[in-house]
Amino acid sequence: MSARPLRPSDVEAWDAEADVVVVGHGIAGGAAAIEAAGAGAEVVVLERMTRGGGSTALSTGIIYFGGGTAVQRACGFPDSVEDMKAYVAMAAGAGADPERVELYCEGSLEHFEWFRGLGVEYEESFLDDKVTHPLTTHCLTFSGNEECWPFSEQVRPVPRGHKPQREGEAGGYLMEAVLAGTERAGASVVNECRVDRLVQAEDGRVVGVVGRRDRAPFAARARCGVVLTTGGFVMDREMLARHAPQLLACNYPVATDTDDGSGIRMGMAAGGEAVNMGEGLVLNAYYPPSSHLRGVFVDGRGQRFVNEDAYLGRTSAAILERADGRAFLVLEDAMHGRTQAFHKVAAVEESFEALGEALGMPPGALPVTMERYNRWAARGQDPLFQKHPKYLQPLVEPPFGALDCTTDGSIFGVFTLGGLSVTAHGEVLDPDGTPVPGLFAAGRCTAGLPREGRTYASGLSLGDASFFGRLAGRRAAAGPATG
Amino acid sequence: MSARPLRPSDVEAWDAEADVVVVGHGIAGGAAAIEAAGAGAEVVVLERMTRGGGSTALSTGIIYFGGGTAVQRACGFPDSVEDMKAYVAMAAGAGADPERVELYCEGSLEHFEWFRGLGVEYEESFLDDKVTHPLTTHCLTFSGNEECWPFSEQVRPVPRGHKPQREGEAGGYLMEAVLAGTERAGASVVNECRVDRLVQAEDGRVVGVVGRRDRAPFAARARCGVVLTTGGFVMDREMLARHAPQLLACNYPVATDTDDGSGIRMGMAAGGEAVNMGEGLVLNAYYPPSSHLRGVFVDGRGQRFVNEDAYLGRTSAAILERADGRAFLVLEDAMHGRTQAFHKVAAVEESFEALGEALGMPPGALPVTMERYNRWAARGQDPLFQKHPKYLQPLVEPPFGALDCTTDGSIFGVFTLGGLSVTAHGEVLDPDGTPVPGLFAAGRCTAGLPREGRTYASGLSLGDASFFGRLAGRRAAAGPATG
Repeated sequence: MSARPLRPSDVEAWDAEADVVVVGHGIAGGAAAIEAAGAGAEVVVLERMTRGGGSTALSTGIIYFGGGTAVQRACGFPDSVEDMKAYVAMAAGAGADPERVELYCEGSLEHFEWFRGLGVEYEESFLDDKVTHPLTTHCLTFSGNEECWPFSEQVRPVPRGHKPQREGEAGGYLMEAVLAGTERAGASVVNECRVDRLVQAEDGRVVGVVGRRDRAPFAARARCGVVLTTGGFVMDREMLARHAPQLLACNYPVATDTDDGSGIRMGMAAGGEAVNMGEGLVLNAYYPPSSHLRGVFVDGRGQRFVNEDAYLGRTSAAILERADGRAFLVLEDAMHGRTQAFHKVAAVEESFEALGEALGMPPGALPVTMERYNRWAARGQDPLFQKHPKYLQPLVEPPFGALDCTTDGSIFGVFTLGGLSVTAHGEVLDPDGTPVPGLFAAGRCTAGLPREGRTYASGLSLGDASFFGRLAGRRAAAGPATG
Repeated sequence: MSARPLRPSDVEAWDAEADVVVVGHGIAGGAAAIEAAGAGAEVVVLERMTRGGGSTALSTGIIYFGGGTAVQRACGFPDSVEDMKAYVAMAAGAGADPERVELYCEGSLEHFEWFRGLGVEYEESFLDDKVTHPLTTHCLTFSGNEECWPFSEQVRPVPRGHKPQREGEAGGYLMEAVLAGTERAGASVVNECRVDRLVQAEDGRVVGVVGRRDRAPFAARARCGVVLTTGGFVMDREMLARHAPQLLACNYPVATDTDDGSGIRMGMAAGGEAVNMGEGLVLNAYYPPSSHLRGVFVDGRGQRFVNEDAYLGRTSAAILERADGRAFLVLEDAMHGRTQAFHKVAAVEESFEALGEALGMPPGALPVTMERYNRWAARGQDPLFQKHPKYLQPLVEPPFGALDCTTDGSIFGVFTLGGLSVTAHGEVLDPDGTPVPGLFAAGRCTAGLPREGRTYASGLSLGDASFFGRLAGRRAAAGPATG
C-alpha cells in the first residue's frame, strides 16, 4: 500500500468531515481529540482496530509525572519542576529537545490533574521495590535510573513513575478513561477504519485522509488539520531493517500489530522528515525479583559492563552494544527467583571457575571478575560501576548460577523511538524545518521527548504521547479552517 | 535555504539542458558522468566549489578492490570473488544490502581496470604495516579488519585496500584522473554552481535543478535524470543532531564544507526516504606507529573493551559505545611513538597502580587488567579479545604511559553513513520502496554499501561511491527522455 498523498481532486466523496481528524485512538490520539474538542473544534477520530487503546492498553499504564504531585507529597518525596527538568533532560537522552523537556516538566502537575479529571485514580502510596511491571495498586515507583549511577550523582533521586490504582497491568484501565474522555468531549469515533494516505493540496496543505472501512473506501476531510497518532514502526521488519538494523536482534516487539510505521510513512510522503530513526527502547527483564540486582552481569568474556541496578533500558542497551548481545547474570542460589520474562538458567556450578568454563568464557576470567567484585562489595562499594550499596553483597555460597540474558536465549522486548520531526506543538516539519501545513503528529510516530533507551524511564512514552498529544490537538484545532 | 522542489512552471528559463544532470563532482559524480556520457547521453556536471574533487580529493585515495587484481596476484595474495563477498558482507555491516555486496564484488576486477583505464597508476607492491594513511607509493594494504578477530575467524584474510602510486595522500591524484575522465568523456562541467532545489513535475518526475551561479539564479533541465552526488551531512550540525546525535561527540569532521546534506534534503523533499541516518564512521587514529598495537586499550574503569589491532572504525566506535568516550592506550616507553593525530600523553608512571591512580581509575583496576593481559600475552594469547599474536607482548618495562584517547582530549574524525535510500542502480526510493522517477543518487548522500563504522574498511566509501556512481550514471542515461 502506497503512502503517497492524494490530491483533493482524486477524492470522489468525503464520508466524514471535521475541523480536526485524528488518526489512531491510543493515548496520543485520545489526548489530541479531547483537547481539540475542548477547544471547540469538531473532531473525528479514526481507529484501525475494533476499539481504541493502542499500545498503551497493553502497558502497565505508568506515566512519568513530577514537580510535586499529590502522590509524591503524600509519600514524602518532595519534588520540584527544576529537579524534574534536570532529570528529564538526562532521561530524554542525546538529541533531546530542550523546549520539550521544559514544557513537559512545567506542565506536569497540570497534566497529572488532567488525568485525574478524566477519572483516573491514583493511590497515595509508594512501591519500595525494583520492578518493571508493578502489579499492585501502589502508585509511585522509581521507574527509571533516578537512584542509579551516573544519574544519581547529577540529580537528587525522586520517584516519578505514577501507576493508576488498579491491580495488574493498568494500561487498559487508563485507556478506558481516555476513550470515555474522547466520547465525553464530543469527538466522534470511527472504529475499524484504516487510514492509508493523506490528502494534500497542490500548495502542500494536508486537508484530509483516505483509507478503508468495512471493505469500502473511506475519506475524511479535515478543515483545520490532521493529527497522526499511529504509533511506532517496530512491527514493520523491513522498515526496521532500513532504519534501525541493530534492533532486529530483539525478538519481542512491545507493540500492537498496528505499530507498522504507517503514519510515519504517510508523514514522510507528505514532506515530513523522520528523525532519530535508529533509536529504540530494548528491554531484557531480568528483574524482578529485585534480589537479581545483587547478582553480577558479565559478558561472554567474563567482564562486567554495566551497573546491574540501572533501569532495564540501560542494561539491555549495554547487553547489545557492549556485550555483543551475550550477557549472563551470575547469582547465588538464594538470590535466584523466576523473572517475568522466564529466563533460562544457562549453567550452575560449584565454583566461578567451573561456571566460567561452562559458559565458554576465557579461562580464569570469571574468577578474577568475581573475586574483585566480592572484595569491594564486602565494603559496600562498587568502584567499577557504582552499583547502589543496597544491592552490593559478595557472592560466596556455592552453587553459583548464571541466568541466560543473551539475545539468542532470552526475551528482548523492543519498540522504536524515532519518527516524524515535530515541534513541541505537534507541527510536522520538513527537512528545512518548515511545518507541513495542516499536518500534526504525536506519540511514537514522532521523535518526541524520549530519544534513547540508554537513558529512558518507564512512563516517559505514555507521558510524552499524552502531554504532546494534547498540545498537538490544541494547535490543530487552532489551525486556519480551509473553508 | 529551502530544499523543497519547484514546479517546472516556476522556472523562468533553463540555463543548461542535458540528458543527465549530475550534482557534485566528487568521485561519485565523476563516475556517474563518465558512464552516462559513455552511454551516449549528453551530460552536465554542476559543482559547487571552484573545482571538482570533493572529499575524495582530501583522502588517501584507497579503494577497496579484490577478487584477484593484478596487484593482489603480483604480491602473492590470491583472492576470489567468493572470498571477497564473504568479507565485504561482514564489512558492510548490519543493514547491508546483499544485492549491492554481490554486484560490488563481482564487478570489482572490472572496476579496478576502469580506474587504470582512466590513467590511475598502481604499484605492484604490498605495504606490510598497520597504517591508516599510507604515505608511500605502495599499493596494497590490509585496510580493514581482515586479519582481526572476529573477522579473521570467518574469512581468510586478504588485503584489498589499493592506493594509487603516488607519495603522500593520493586522493587528489585519483580525482585528477576522474576529473580528466569526465572531460574526456565529453561531459560539460559547470563549477561554482550551487544547486539548491530540484524541479519536479506534478506527476512526481524530477526534470531538473535550480540554484545559483555567479550570484545569479541558475537552472538546468534534465531530459532523462538528475544524479545527486553531493556527499554526506556531517557538516550540518543541526541535521547531525536530529539524526545522529551521538556523532556530535566527534570533534573533527572528515569532509569538505559542502558535506552539508543538501542532496539528502533535496531528495527527501522530492519524496525520497533517508535511511541508516544514525550511522557514521568514527576515527581516532592511535596508530601508526604499529608499535601502538602492542599497547593495551583500557576504559576509564581500567577494563579492556576491544582488540587493539582492529581497524580504527571499530576501535573508535568501541571507545564511544563501550568506554563512554573515555579510553587510554597503555604503552611501554619503547612502544611509544608520535601518532598522525598527535595524541597527548595523559600520564606516565612507574607502576600500573600509580598509572591507574593518575588516570582516575578505580583502585587496583589497572594492575588486575595488566597482570592478566601480560600473563596471557607471554604465551602469545589474548583470550579476552583475540588480538593477533604478532602484537602480543607483555608490558614489563617501566615507566608506563597512557595515551589520551578520550573524546575530550583527542581527535575523533567522523563522517556519516546514512543517506537516501537507493537501489543498487541509484534509483532514489520513497518510503513505499517506489522509485522517484528521474531521480538518482550515489556516494555518501546515499545509504550505500558500507552501513556501519564498527565493521568498516578503508576504501569502501570511495569504492562504493565510484562503483555505484557508475551504475547510477548508466541507469540515468537509460531513463526515458522527457522530450
